Amino acid sequence: MVVSGSAASGPARDVHPAWLPDEALRAIGSRRCRVTGTGPLVDTVRYEVERARGLHGGGGDGELRLSIGEGTGPEEFTLHRTPECTTVTASTGAGLLYGYFHVVRLGEAAFTSAPPETHRPAVPLRMLNHWDNVDVHPVMGQVERGYSGGSLFWQDGAARGDLARVRAYGRLLAASGINALSVNNVNVHAAEARLLTDRTDEVAAIAGELRAYGVRTHLSVSFAAPMLLGGLETADPLDKGVREWWRRAVDHMYARIPDFGGFVVKADSEGQPGPFVYGRSHADGANLLAEALAPHGGTVHWRAFVYDHTQDWRDRTTDRARAAYDHFAPLDGQFAANAVLQVKHGPMDFQVREPVSPVIGALPRTRLAVELQATQEYTGQQRHVCALAPMWSQVLRFRPRGNGGPTVGELAGGLVAVSNAGADPFWMGHPLAQFNLYAFGRLAWNPDAEPGQILAEWTELTFTPDLTGDPERLRAGIRAVLAGSWATYEKYTAPLGVGFMVQPGHHYGPSVDGYEYSPWGTYHFADRDGIGVDRSRATGTGYASQYAKPWSDMYETPATCPDDLLLFFHHVPYAHVLHSGKTVIQHIYDTHFEGVEEAEEAQRTWASIAGLVAPDVHARVAERYVEQVRCAREWRDQVNSYFLRKSGVPDAKGRTIY
Amino acid sequence: MVVSGSAASGPARDVHPAWLPDEALRAIGSRRCRVTGTGPLVDTVRYEVERARGLHGGGGDGELRLSIGEGTGPEEFTLHRTPECTTVTASTGAGLLYGYFHVVRLGEAAFTSAPPETHRPAVPLRMLNHWDNVDVHPVMGQVERGYSGGSLFWQDGAARGDLARVRAYGRLLAASGINALSVNNVNVHAAEARLLTDRTDEVAAIAGELRAYGVRTHLSVSFAAPMLLGGLETADPLDKGVREWWRRAVDHMYARIPDFGGFVVKADSEGQPGPFVYGRSHADGANLLAEALAPHGGTVHWRAFVYDHTQDWRDRTTDRARAAYDHFAPLDGQFAANAVLQVKHGPMDFQVREPVSPVIGALPRTRLAVELQATQEYTGQQRHVCALAPMWSQVLRFRPRGNGGPTVGELAGGLVAVSNAGADPFWMGHPLAQFNLYAFGRLAWNPDAEPGQILAEWTELTFTPDLTGDPERLRAGIRAVLAGSWATYEKYTAPLGVGFMVQPGHHYGPSVDGYEYSPWGTYHFADRDGIGVDRSRATGTGYASQYAKPWSDMYETPATCPDDLLLFFHHVPYAHVLHSGKTVIQHIYDTHFEGVEEAEEAQRTWASIAGLVAPDVHARVAERYVEQVRCAREWRDQVNSYFLRKSGVPDAKGRTIY
Repeated sequence: MVVSGSAASGPARDVHPAWLPDEALRAIGSRRCRVTGTGPLVDTVRYEVERARGLHGGGGDGELRLSIGEGTGPEEFTLHRTPECTTVTASTGAGLLYGYFHVVRLGEAAFTSAPPETHRPAVPLRMLNHWDNVDVHPVMGQVERGYSGGSLFWQDGAARGDLARVRAYGRLLAASGINALSVNNVNVHAAEARLLTDRTDEVAAIAGELRAYGVRTHLSVSFAAPMLLGGLETADPLDKGVREWWRRAVDHMYARIPDFGGFVVKADSEGQPGPFVYGRSHADGANLLAEALAPHGGTVHWRAFVYDHTQDWRDRTTDRARAAYDHFAPLDGQFAANAVLQVKHGPMDFQVREPVSPVIGALPRTRLAVELQATQEYTGQQRHVCALAPMWSQVLRFRPRGNGGPTVGELAGGLVAVSNAGADPFWMGHPLAQFNLYAFGRLAWNPDAEPGQILAEWTELTFTPDLTGDPERLRAGIRAVLAGSWATYEKYTAPLGVGFMVQPGHHYGPSVDGYEYSPWGTYHFADRDGIGVDRSRATGTGYASQYAKPWSDMYETPATCPDDLLLFFHHVPYAHVLHSGKTVIQHIYDTHFEGVEEAEEAQRTWASIAGLVAPDVHARVAERYVEQVRCAREWRDQVNSYFLRKSGVPDAKGRTIY
Repeated sequence: MVVSGSAASGPARDVHPAWLPDEALRAIGSRRCRVTGTGPLVDTVRYEVERARGLHGGGGDGELRLSIGEGTGPEEFTLHRTPECTTVTASTGAGLLYGYFHVVRLGEAAFTSAPPETHRPAVPLRMLNHWDNVDVHPVMGQVERGYSGGSLFWQDGAARGDLARVRAYGRLLAASGINALSVNNVNVHAAEARLLTDRTDEVAAIAGELRAYGVRTHLSVSFAAPMLLGGLETADPLDKGVREWWRRAVDHMYARIPDFGGFVVKADSEGQPGPFVYGRSHADGANLLAEALAPHGGTVHWRAFVYDHTQDWRDRTTDRARAAYDHFAPLDGQFAANAVLQVKHGPMDFQVREPVSPVIGALPRTRLAVELQATQEYTGQQRHVCALAPMWSQVLRFRPRGNGGPTVGELAGGLVAVSNAGADPFWMGHPLAQFNLYAFGRLAWNPDAEPGQILAEWTELTFTPDLTGDPERLRAGIRAVLAGSWATYEKYTAPLGVGFMVQPGHHYGPSVDGYEYSPWGTYHFADRDGIGVDRSRATGTGYASQYAKPWSDMYETPATCPDDLLLFFHHVPYAHVLHSGKTVIQHIYDTHFEGVEEAEEAQRTWASIAGLVAPDVHARVAERYVEQVRCAREWRDQVNSYFLRKSGVPDAKGRTIY
């Protein structure tokens, strides 16, 4: 790796350092350090150490030794702390790099005695999907569902000329544990399709920057590429010419990018082409690409997000929640070894509350990646604070095959998040949304990690409280505004798991009936008597029976279904009494008033730590809170008014509903 | 006028001739003709006569003489038919041109004996407003609320190079009686603002084409032009520098276009700049421009469409329907003689059913123009057949000051329609929407004209039934699909005058709650018990009291309010019994089923006259009917389902509601 100048020294001065501010490097940078070994990632570690020492003087008490040694797996490292010296040993550069950033996280604690520890990632593939477009899309813009300014990779229809910021991004990703990334939108438009063939140089340039921090580059491709790009008359996965075309395309890609990761594919999904038109299965489709990638060690991530997006709202027999399971569960055992089924964590689409997708436990002989969404499409679009780690943690700890079985975190060979990062100076639009990307990386490394612990860790790195006048107040403030923010967001938006009460299209702000008469399969069926979707086996769509026991039984009746998913699984009267003891209608009113109060309280808390946070960060967040509180009130009043008008049941507490 | 080549011979061959097909000129073109007089419009008449004779041979029995004479007003003509000769006499070229097109409309009947008749327009200003943008707007496109392809005037950010079609358009307008036109959107964006200053050449080029057919050109301008274009620090209408700037701008315009008509201004309306920011009245604003225009004989059309478009939906005390009256009625007597207050025909915004705006009768000392909307923004966007003449006729015959007072048609010194024409080969997207533009012109000439008579007249011109195998079946078919189409559209969309149950933004298709929680002031307040807006004096917003008697009394109570406006003026229970004897809820169900049945019947009728209509016209209309029927069913099912779910009242006839 060439380490020189701005290409390696991080992004421009006006870009926020996120969880790697110079101060976070003080414990290392103020000590003697030695890096032993060879290879590009070892060079990166060497560069990092030199940079830290350059910032903080080096040469103080204690020593850090980072060495390539033996006995650990490809991304593992061993940490040993003695009074004289802290050592990190790894058998690969990647392990050494992760060890280095582990020492960064520990800070001064890295230089206190402790027994040896070996660390290794629980999930081998820890990936980001960027829904970035090369050409600005007329509706979706530069980044589909992006709320962080432009793309880090693409500008003016091509790869950015200056990729320094991509390298800085890779550095942040390595420091959170992420090791893979796809560089373009899963909805592959005309310009993006060509990244596979005559525009590979642009992908290679980006890959070169990310490689320096151990992040492998992947590409989203169109299933119709042989027709779009190759001029073939078919994209049939069983056609010999098609297979040959993909083989050549992949060979070409690996000739340019020898460590290319592989493909991400959205097929037969929301208008993207796929194998169905040829009467072929999705296993046929995935295996076509897997076959071409296999000789090079690449994988295909084949998304399970397949459903009928032109459903007739009048048709109560079709249930979008069922679709992924119905399509994919029968295919178990048919996928190639290097095909990975990439499944959204819930059966719908990244709502603030969904059950865990029944697909996750249903294909024991199929490689599985679970897809999360760091970009806050349905969770406030980085104008609202919504720390998603508690939700993700719940998902990752769920045991799809029952209480004795493995967790989602154990079943997943890969965890994928749709990235929330962009060209915004704070990376995410909302400075506090940085936590979502960091937390994703940490949970991918260790799905059992405590969200509260990850938050504390991120707070120390990002805000370096000890350097402020009142570290405990700062820590408490950050914790207060973030820890419960997902619960707060859930309270003031769609209630009890029903989802999708958003403005159609852009998905920001309330519209209770916005999707009710649409073709998207996302209905709540509210009438003057009750609300919710009957997905029981006995009387509904049967979705509940897609789960293993005990979940299928638990979800089957309102008596055992958890309150927070009640309306996802059942249609109940407004007077239905929840396990909480409240009626559904009173729950709706209460949570909506509480949610706004909590948002207002968070805004006040943020204001109270003004002197303890960098002014630019504080100002940006304060500005976003104005919008969050405005929008939360809008949610409260629209949802409450809608249900008061529909149910006629007054609020037991007599509060203002319009 | 130079009459030669394509510039005068009409648009390209693939453009539909609308109500001036060659066949419509047969009666004139097969006879001897003589045109006497001088001047550009006399030359146009001469050219038209020659063209007709060129098409049809001339020289047959009978003679047509068109002469400049004496004794008639500026747009009048006298028609005299004797066995030997038909004469048209007018004292101006414009009168002669209108007389010529009158003879075209009469066809063979023009050459039968009849007593002399003098014809004159009832309304001096018969104007189209084009909401055309010069630059394509990112949201609104080339033509705001345009459903007819590109702009006739603008393309690729500038005036079209080939303006032959503009001349052909002027010819169609003259043949329907229109004499004025504004060439750009009332929402004046950056490029369009400059048409006033450094881009007058483009306006002049268009004006040159329209002038050949007696159509005077106007311009929409930004009230902030002195700041946007002149670099001034204010647009205050009482500022001396501002007045001077406008004077110079107007002088510059008239130097380029000596018969320039004047300005159209949308001020303090939906985000456009206006006098309010300076604490000035709209009379101050209008008079500023009137002062500059007066020396040249120009007028300013100042729109009364001023309301709070950022209303809080929670605020029941604000009523958008009141806004125009509240703003403008107190200003009566303050407007300059060449300022015209341009008032939308209803108090809201071109819904399928609104009461007549109370502003129309409320400013006796102010010049008035009434604005209609030919482009079908809220009436099916030229994908649905919706012949608006019956609605316009109702408006024009209404007597705002009570039963003894003048009609709207008598009060209006100007009638203005937002044009529905564009670059589409059929001019309007939907061939049958041509009737709306034609009917507007004819009603502006004579507001008392019978819509059914205008339809018959248009049918003869456009379809020349006598040349088909079955003229009566063709006439009956055209009448069947058009005459009741407004009533049909009303039936399957928003009921009983409540309006605005449309998809937000683009305004196509149903969304019952689409605007219910929006800032636009367009609410229906449906709850489980009832629906409608209480605009009574006694218990509501007081809007009803803006009318003169007897209307204020009539609208005040449900007992006297007409059924078709009931929900506009009152909030009533679903069980409220209409004058028709039906409950409100059953009326909703019945009209929605009927409306779809009528649309389906119209589609069948259209199919049945396939052999009698030009194939390209028939195919285009047939294609649109597929969409109309689909969309009408969507309206029916969404509206009925919404109200069944909300009211719980089953359909008395047991039909399917979802």
